[in-house]
Amino acid sequence: MSDPVRIGLLGRGTVGGAFAGLLAERAGAFEAATGRRPEVAGTLTRSEGDFSDILERSEVVVELIGGTDPARTYVLDALRAGRPVVTANKQLLAQHGEELFGVAREAGVQLRFEAAVAGVIPIVRTIQESFGVTEIDKVFGIVNGTTNFILSEMAAGGAAYGEVLARAQELGYAEADPTDDVNGADAAAKMAILARLAFHTPVTLDQVAFEGIEAIQPDDLAYAKELDLSLKLLGVAERRDGGVSVRVFPCFLYGGHPLAPVGGPFNAVMVEAPAITEVTMSGPGAGGVETASAVLGDLVSIVAGEAPVSDASERLPIVTDVSSSFYLHLEVADEPGVLARIAQVLGENDVSVKSVVQRGTGGDARLVMVVHECLESRFVAAVERIGRSPDLRSAPRYIRVIEEEFV
Amino acid sequence: MSDPVRIGLLGRGTVGGAFAGLLAERAGAFEAATGRRPEVAGTLTRSEGDFSDILERSEVVVELIGGTDPARTYVLDALRAGRPVVTANKQLLAQHGEELFGVAREAGVQLRFEAAVAGVIPIVRTIQESFGVTEIDKVFGIVNGTTNFILSEMAAGGAAYGEVLARAQELGYAEADPTDDVNGADAAAKMAILARLAFHTPVTLDQVAFEGIEAIQPDDLAYAKELDLSLKLLGVAERRDGGVSVRVFPCFLYGGHPLAPVGGPFNAVMVEAPAITEVTMSGPGAGGVETASAVLGDLVSIVAGEAPVSDASERLPIVTDVSSSFYLHLEVADEPGVLARIAQVLGENDVSVKSVVQRGTGGDARLVMVVHECLESRFVAAVERIGRSPDLRSAPRYIRVIEEEFV
Repeated sequence: MSDPVRIGLLGRGTVGGAFAGLLAERAGAFEAATGRRPEVAGTLTRSEGDFSDILERSEVVVELIGGTDPARTYVLDALRAGRPVVTANKQLLAQHGEELFGVAREAGVQLRFEAAVAGVIPIVRTIQESFGVTEIDKVFGIVNGTTNFILSEMAAGGAAYGEVLARAQELGYAEADPTDDVNGADAAAKMAILARLAFHTPVTLDQVAFEGIEAIQPDDLAYAKELDLSLKLLGVAERRDGGVSVRVFPCFLYGGHPLAPVGGPFNAVMVEAPAITEVTMSGPGAGGVETASAVLGDLVSIVAGEAPVSDASERLPIVTDVSSSFYLHLEVADEPGVLARIAQVLGENDVSVKSVVQRGTGGDARLVMVVHECLESRFVAAVERIGRSPDLRSAPRYIRVIEEEFV
Repeated sequence: MSDPVRIGLLGRGTVGGAFAGLLAERAGAFEAATGRRPEVAGTLTRSEGDFSDILERSEVVVELIGGTDPARTYVLDALRAGRPVVTANKQLLAQHGEELFGVAREAGVQLRFEAAVAGVIPIVRTIQESFGVTEIDKVFGIVNGTTNFILSEMAAGGAAYGEVLARAQELGYAEADPTDDVNGADAAAKMAILARLAFHTPVTLDQVAFEGIEAIQPDDLAYAKELDLSLKLLGVAERRDGGVSVRVFPCFLYGGHPLAPVGGPFNAVMVEAPAITEVTMSGPGAGGVETASAVLGDLVSIVAGEAPVSDASERLPIVTDVSSSFYLHLEVADEPGVLARIAQVLGENDVSVKSVVQRGTGGDARLVMVVHECLESRFVAAVERIGRSPDLRSAPRYIRVIEEEFV
């Protein structure tokens, strides 16, 4: 059996704690993917652990302290000591990226930071690897969940900024001091990182022009609704006039825009290039376990080295009778009692009706209904019985429906 | 200088040709990312080239022939000879995946196939690498662009299936023989691949239950509109009852579902897991250059080996004065001539108005307008002049607008 992978964990806050938990929970899958079990060789917290000692005992370092100091020193020391590093630290990357990249290159070790931008959305990997040699024109999107939640709530309820901010704080979507989120600084750091990756050009934080959402008025959102516009705090990094422009600003989008429906605390990023047209990715932009998942994905890539051609480690049975909701279209005689007879057959098969539309057309009528989730075999049995009924004018038609409603 | 990367190219159809073109165009970026220039060591077409000879001269093989035979033999031979392989061949993977994965593992070389599923959307890499140790519950989405185009057109125009199919063929969104697309078989092959990756369990093509869209009637779509439903051909692979279910079927989604707005020939895939909540990715599902881009991304990953910590190879200037469209909110005196005076100031700064909403409130009025794209400095100059006018009752407010309309 191979030696375990010895991981030095810096930080044990929300993300650090979630990462340690997830690592333990997924240890078996980690071993299946990499051939080695993970082991936390040491954890550095404010009150416990010694960095040099942990570095000595680790072969890879996961930095989840946040902030630039002492995180910068730790990451530099780890890279110089030949340890690959995974970090979720956007400020560190945005402010000291070139220095860190340079040291990682010199040392010939990996520095991965998927969790630093847009949480669990794999935008860093996509730009660096999938589109690594693509001439990207533009990377833009919603990279701050706090402000997206606030703007969604303001648009939905007509409430003022301050009121919604207070609610966001209660729900944990905004911090006690929300300054960096609401003034655009947090999004600016993320856009500096994405611009550097997309355009291979150094972008410092002070080159990113940013505005926040503090001045947005409820009546701006009300007028916007009339004009079919929805408001987002956008980060935009794009080629312009032979250079690049990197900005963060509140922006209206027309209804048909792919980012318009992205609501609540979600993030979404679009990449545009002639060779790919456009790719859009959305998902949770924060959250302890989601951020920890992104960190874990990076760690696995470092340990696995190349793309996994993983063994089929499971032999799960294939299930064929699956429950779902259905749309059912029936052409029937327009006579008393027909609906009752059909409803009875459905009921006898435990199929319950969610909504019905009925239309008469001469002696015939159309019954179009949506039924609640039920086992497919039961629904099909009911429809077969209905299909044999003399009430029917043509064969029943049905189509599955996904009932879940989303934010 | 390092030796060039010698690439054996099998196939020179639409995707093969686009790949060769893209490779030549992006040779500089390829070298920046990997340290080596790409070189096509030989191309196999129906009429030219000898496979053994090309294999001998190549260090990596790109298979873009399609179909299972002779593609399977070529890929197996290449892997056994220790050559990493990139393929866009969904049928090959869906029908012979376990065999190919096994041989690749034994030979210790990579087999990459991003382009086989959902075109340029990096769903294979995301599931294998970012979410490689995540316990995925469900992978589902729109993985066939032909049927999505047909359903979008039927919903928009009320036309019948046959009519829209003919239009899709004219536009190149459907092949002369569209059978495998419209009956769900193409989507089934892609879902077999995704299910294998997500659940680490072998899924053969005959275990995927599939239905197509041939029987969909225009009036199903008309009723659906009344019920706020939109119709998609969905592929769904999910854990159910201790096993997995993999199916393809036409399905209604409610308006708020993330897949509901995905129209035209686009693809979109969602991944759900407790540790990531949900991630959605959308983009073009086909197209020569888009598919070639996905192939190129795989090739670069193979050659680069580890995650690139690329040097900042560019020094692009930062552009700050960017043009965009704006929303402008003005509180003005409700008097004759006010709108004319404001319009004049805008016009003098080359700012043209797209739409205006005016509301009177006592002696005051609100003018809310959207102006067409213009240079930001000009717009701001106009607003500053307007702000100094005695017509204004409060400071002007403005917010940027993205004017582009999407499918």
